[in-house]
Amino acid sequence: MEFTKMHALGNDYIVINEFDGEKVKEEEKAEFSRKICRRGFSVGADGVIFIQKPTSDEYDVRFRIFNSDGSEAEMCGNGIRCFSKYVYERIMKKNPLKVETKGGLRVSEMEIEGDEVKKIKVYMGVPKFKLKDIPMVVDGYKEDDEFLNGELKLKNPYLPKVKLSVVNVGNPHAVIFVEDNNIDLDFVREHLDVIGKEIEHHEAFPERINVHFVKVLNPNEIRIVTWERGAGYTTACGTGTTASVIMAHKLGKTNNRVLAHLDGGDLEIEIKDDGVYMIGDAVMVYDAKLINIGW
Amino acid sequence: MEFTKMHALGNDYIVINEFDGEKVKEEEKAEFSRKICRRGFSVGADGVIFIQKPTSDEYDVRFRIFNSDGSEAEMCGNGIRCFSKYVYERIMKKNPLKVETKGGLRVSEMEIEGDEVKKIKVYMGVPKFKLKDIPMVVDGYKEDDEFLNGELKLKNPYLPKVKLSVVNVGNPHAVIFVEDNNIDLDFVREHLDVIGKEIEHHEAFPERINVHFVKVLNPNEIRIVTWERGAGYTTACGTGTTASVIMAHKLGKTNNRVLAHLDGGDLEIEIKDDGVYMIGDAVMVYDAKLINIGW
Repeated sequence: MEFTKMHALGNDYIVINEFDGEKVKEEEKAEFSRKICRRGFSVGADGVIFIQKPTSDEYDVRFRIFNSDGSEAEMCGNGIRCFSKYVYERIMKKNPLKVETKGGLRVSEMEIEGDEVKKIKVYMGVPKFKLKDIPMVVDGYKEDDEFLNGELKLKNPYLPKVKLSVVNVGNPHAVIFVEDNNIDLDFVREHLDVIGKEIEHHEAFPERINVHFVKVLNPNEIRIVTWERGAGYTTACGTGTTASVIMAHKLGKTNNRVLAHLDGGDLEIEIKDDGVYMIGDAVMVYDAKLINIGW
Repeated sequence: MEFTKMHALGNDYIVINEFDGEKVKEEEKAEFSRKICRRGFSVGADGVIFIQKPTSDEYDVRFRIFNSDGSEAEMCGNGIRCFSKYVYERIMKKNPLKVETKGGLRVSEMEIEGDEVKKIKVYMGVPKFKLKDIPMVVDGYKEDDEFLNGELKLKNPYLPKVKLSVVNVGNPHAVIFVEDNNIDLDFVREHLDVIGKEIEHHEAFPERINVHFVKVLNPNEIRIVTWERGAGYTTACGTGTTASVIMAHKLGKTNNRVLAHLDGGDLEIEIKDDGVYMIGDAVMVYDAKLINIGW
C-alpha cells in the first residue's frame, strides 16, 4: 500500500490515491484509519484522505476523509487543501477542481507556479444557521431558530455556563468568543480538555460538535483555539476557521475578509455574496510504502 | 533523503541508513532531528537513528540516536532493537551484531525466521550504581555511595518527597517503587507531567535523569510508567525497563528474570553474571522518501 503524508497548518493526513492506485475495502476503511493513524505504533496522523473517482459527471474527483477514531467526516478544510494539491500535482491538471464531498460540492481554485500548487482557495459553501441544520436541540428554541451568542449550561467547575453561536459549514461548529465570556485564551488552553470535551458531547448536540474559542484582535484579524470533534485539541481546523469568521462577521465583530491566526499557522477567510472562501497552503511531507500497519 | 519508520513498543524512530546511503551532515543532525520529529508538521517521531560505519574494527556497525529535542542520547534500548533488525535485514547478515554506541559496545543477538528478525536480545552492559557514575549530587552522600530507595525532597504539591533509586545503564535512571511511596500508578499518571518533569530537572541530577514509576506485581512481573529525559511521557523505554528490573532485583523485590509490562507492550529483562540482557521485538512500519521536512 502506497501513501503520501501531507499537512496543512499542522493537521496531518495520510493521503491514499484510490483514483488510480490501490484501494482499501469500504468496510475496512474505519478500522484501517484507526490503526494507521495511531501515533508511535503506526504511521500516525490526524486522519486518512481517500481520493476516489466521483459518483457523477458533475464532479472531477471525490474526497473522503476518516478521522483517527475511525469516524468519517463530511468535510475538512485543511484536508481538502492537501487533497487538491495532490490531485492537481499527481492526478489531473484541472483548475478549478470540482470536488465531491459528503458535505456536497466544493470547488478548489489553485495558485500555481510551474507544476506546483502554492495556495488553494476553497469554496466552503453557504453556511446554515438553523438549529435543525446543525443539528442542535435546546429548550426555548425552535428548529428554525438560530443560536447566536446564546447561553448554554455546563457541568464543569471551570466554566459553569458559556455563550456560544452555532453554524454548519458542511459540519457543525460552536464558536465561543472569549470576550463575551469574560475569559481569555490562556484560560481556554489550560482547561481545554475538560471544556472542549463537555461541549463536544453536550446533550444539545445529538451529533456532537466542533468547538472553537475565538479572540477578535481587530476587525481584520482573529485568533482561534480549537477542540475538534473526535480528535481533541488540534493546531488548526479549516472548517472551524471558516465558521469562526462567519460568526465574527455576522455578529458585527469583523469585516468580511479576515486573517485568522491558528496555533498551526495562518489562514484567510473571505465572505462573499455566494458563500464563503478559504485561502491557504498545504505541504507534501513524504511518499511512502507501508510495510506493517503496527499493532 | 530516504528513511524507514520503525517502532519498538510504540517508541517510534526515523531510521536513516548512512552506512551505505545518503548522509545528514554532522553539524546539521541536531536541527534536522528537531525538525523531522515534529509531529503534524513533519514526519513525527520520538527520535532519529543514524546507522553509520564503525570507528574501529572491534565493531560491526555504529549506532547514533538523536531525541526529538535535538539532543544526542548515549543509548536507547528500544532504538537499538529497531536498529539491529534494520541492519540484519537490510545491510549485513551478522548475528550476533557488535554495535558501537556512545555508551560503549552493545551486542545484539537475534532470533531469526527466514530473513526476518523476530526478537532481539541486547546485552545492556553492567549497571553502575555510584553517584559519580549517574551523575548525582546530594547532601549526605559521597560520590562513591549508592542511592537505593533514598529520600529526595520535591517542591510540587502532589508528592513533597519521594523515595527513589538510581542506576546508570548507559544513561541515567531514577526508579521509584510506588509501594514504597504510598502511591499507585493511577496517581502517577494523573500527575506525571509535574512530578516527572521535576525529578528530571532536580538539582541532584546535573545531567538530568529518566524517571520510572514501578509497581511490583509478583517476583516475576512488574509494571512501569515512564517519563523520559528530553521527551516526556513515553509508552516504553528499553534502558528504563532494564534499570527498573535491576533495581527491583537488587532490592530483593523480584527474581533475576522479569517480564515488564509497559504501556506500549511487554519486554523481558534477564540479569546474569556478566551483565544485563533485554529481549523484545521491533516493527518496520514503512519506507519513505522525504519531499519536504515541513516548517
